[in-house]
Amino acid sequence: MIYADNAATTKISASVLEKMLPFLQEQYGNASSQYSLGIKAKCAVEQARHQIAVAIGAEPSEIVFTSGGSESNSWVLSSVSNGHVITSSIEHSSVLDACHSLERNGIDVTYLPVDCNGSVLLDSIKEAIRSDTQLVSIMLANNEIGAIQPIAEIGEYLRERGILFHTDAVQAVGKIPVMIKNLGVDFLTASSHKFNGAKGTGILYKRNGVSLPPLIFGGEQEFGARAGTENVAGIVAAGYAIMESVNEMATLADKLSAFVQATICGIRAQLPSVIINADENNRLPGIVNIVFDGVTGESLMHFLDLKGICVSTSSACTSGTDKPSHVLMALGLTEQQAKSAIRISYGKYNNINEVETIVATICIAYNKILAAKL
Amino acid sequence: MIYADNAATTKISASVLEKMLPFLQEQYGNASSQYSLGIKAKCAVEQARHQIAVAIGAEPSEIVFTSGGSESNSWVLSSVSNGHVITSSIEHSSVLDACHSLERNGIDVTYLPVDCNGSVLLDSIKEAIRSDTQLVSIMLANNEIGAIQPIAEIGEYLRERGILFHTDAVQAVGKIPVMIKNLGVDFLTASSHKFNGAKGTGILYKRNGVSLPPLIFGGEQEFGARAGTENVAGIVAAGYAIMESVNEMATLADKLSAFVQATICGIRAQLPSVIINADENNRLPGIVNIVFDGVTGESLMHFLDLKGICVSTSSACTSGTDKPSHVLMALGLTEQQAKSAIRISYGKYNNINEVETIVATICIAYNKILAAKL
Repeated sequence: MIYADNAATTKISASVLEKMLPFLQEQYGNASSQYSLGIKAKCAVEQARHQIAVAIGAEPSEIVFTSGGSESNSWVLSSVSNGHVITSSIEHSSVLDACHSLERNGIDVTYLPVDCNGSVLLDSIKEAIRSDTQLVSIMLANNEIGAIQPIAEIGEYLRERGILFHTDAVQAVGKIPVMIKNLGVDFLTASSHKFNGAKGTGILYKRNGVSLPPLIFGGEQEFGARAGTENVAGIVAAGYAIMESVNEMATLADKLSAFVQATICGIRAQLPSVIINADENNRLPGIVNIVFDGVTGESLMHFLDLKGICVSTSSACTSGTDKPSHVLMALGLTEQQAKSAIRISYGKYNNINEVETIVATICIAYNKILAAKL
Repeated sequence: MIYADNAATTKISASVLEKMLPFLQEQYGNASSQYSLGIKAKCAVEQARHQIAVAIGAEPSEIVFTSGGSESNSWVLSSVSNGHVITSSIEHSSVLDACHSLERNGIDVTYLPVDCNGSVLLDSIKEAIRSDTQLVSIMLANNEIGAIQPIAEIGEYLRERGILFHTDAVQAVGKIPVMIKNLGVDFLTASSHKFNGAKGTGILYKRNGVSLPPLIFGGEQEFGARAGTENVAGIVAAGYAIMESVNEMATLADKLSAFVQATICGIRAQLPSVIINADENNRLPGIVNIVFDGVTGESLMHFLDLKGICVSTSSACTSGTDKPSHVLMALGLTEQQAKSAIRISYGKYNNINEVETIVATICIAYNKILAAKL
């Protein structure tokens, strides 16, 4: 099998799993229990909180563990109780659906357009700001095309105006440097299974001093901000996974960029008409979204699956629906083009032989599917 | 180490861990991905949903996976947007705190008293019902004293009146038979780590046809009810753990009841003044809450911890605070008595030798602590 859908989820790192396993075995204490077994669990949680804080340049007291990126996003967005919210038209469905819920509750939401490369322009935010704007939520890097947004620039502008700023950094954390002090955000979402941790553990960075009412009520876990027995094993995995990602980041980014370059060159050499979405100078390393005019992304994906290659047509969270990707539509693609795209996303376990196999198989698939249609 | 705090959390069953591990290793697909690796993950999730449905006599379409009991409880309670809610004064903090939040939003909440055994009386519910009562939430079995509530009786009464009924069955599922058709509930909460599954996976039973707005927004996971990439490994563990618990339930209940009986007899023989909370004929097997007049539960707990024995003073979710247990106060105990209690909760991995050690150590601890005070 060749796995090239690392934007959907990643294989847990073997060394991370090794650190996690004791907390699924003998170290099974409840982190809120006051005896030694519980205290050991609590220490492990706090160590992970420290690891994550260091990795993104935050204070441990600013890191809250959740069940995943969707919870973190939903939590921040749902906290708005009046006024106006600004987001972009290419956010993850957890942000967009939370915004739709806000609208049903009488809150105005502005969905900013993006340019043809998938960039949100600061000017469009400046124009959208109102006196009652409570929150701006713009993702750090897009999950379908990898486009990186000018978060630092937006953050600086919003801080001067005292408007709360959230960024969904699920795709960015662990892939590119993400340092809170450079971003000017009040909230940041990350997800462990996107950087070779385990599914079921999300992170919310919440700037000290910023208030956020609980989404999940109960005990005093997570500074009273997020109740529920801690998923100690998952949290431990998140801590080690983020450290490993940060340590490997520079080397890995070069490797993944080379893989993407090889993919694009290889496919273009045989299929010169393909369209590459998002600006290559402003894209996450490892992710590329390609439009293959004349065939559906779905048919390509299934053909590749039969050959043991995993790629996706869009976000896993919105796949399985008939709708064209809202992200690709926002770039100005036609519905047909949007339905002709696949996303390839490489990760640390890929190698150049796999890239070559993917390129060759895609070209064969494209020609076969096109021939079958004629 | 002797672990006797199984109401706080349990050790994962070795056979459950074995079933879970492949989904932390080679089977790492995102359950929403449309290729084979994703479909295998999806199948595993659906198998677990089926296992849980069978175990509680529900339809698979009525089972929603969450991140834990606190999320399930918070979700149901937070969904009330007007009118009146009835709950009891001995609920878990996730229910009570969600109710306090409702009150801040202008919703009336009635907190029913309990009798000296910790039972909610049907008559008190009949008296509290109003024309605008939207939801009643009464736990199936209490987490501190093990008292089992007359849920079937309450459910029958509420169904005739068309009032939504939720039960927090976190302590009951896996310990005593819990069959939806006998309970008359619309919502039921369970948590995998309480029945030898993994931390981080909760269950919400939601009767088909009953609507519940999302707490977490995003993708179409969990029938669109609860978004977020599925914690496949944790969900798989929940499915196998519930099956194992149900299969072992009858034998285990006898064993645990005998352990509790031996504990009470052994302690009473040396310390006849202890008070046992909750009616022994109406209590979960394996859990016992004992008041040791003259010493604090905390001092006993720490003494036992030094001897390698894990017991708790109250719910893990409320431990670490200075307040006396709200459950014990609701029974009519004085603040001093409430602070003098410990909870012992046995599980499948305990044996009679451990019980004898616990009894002997508690009696030594009690006498030493009392002597030190004089």
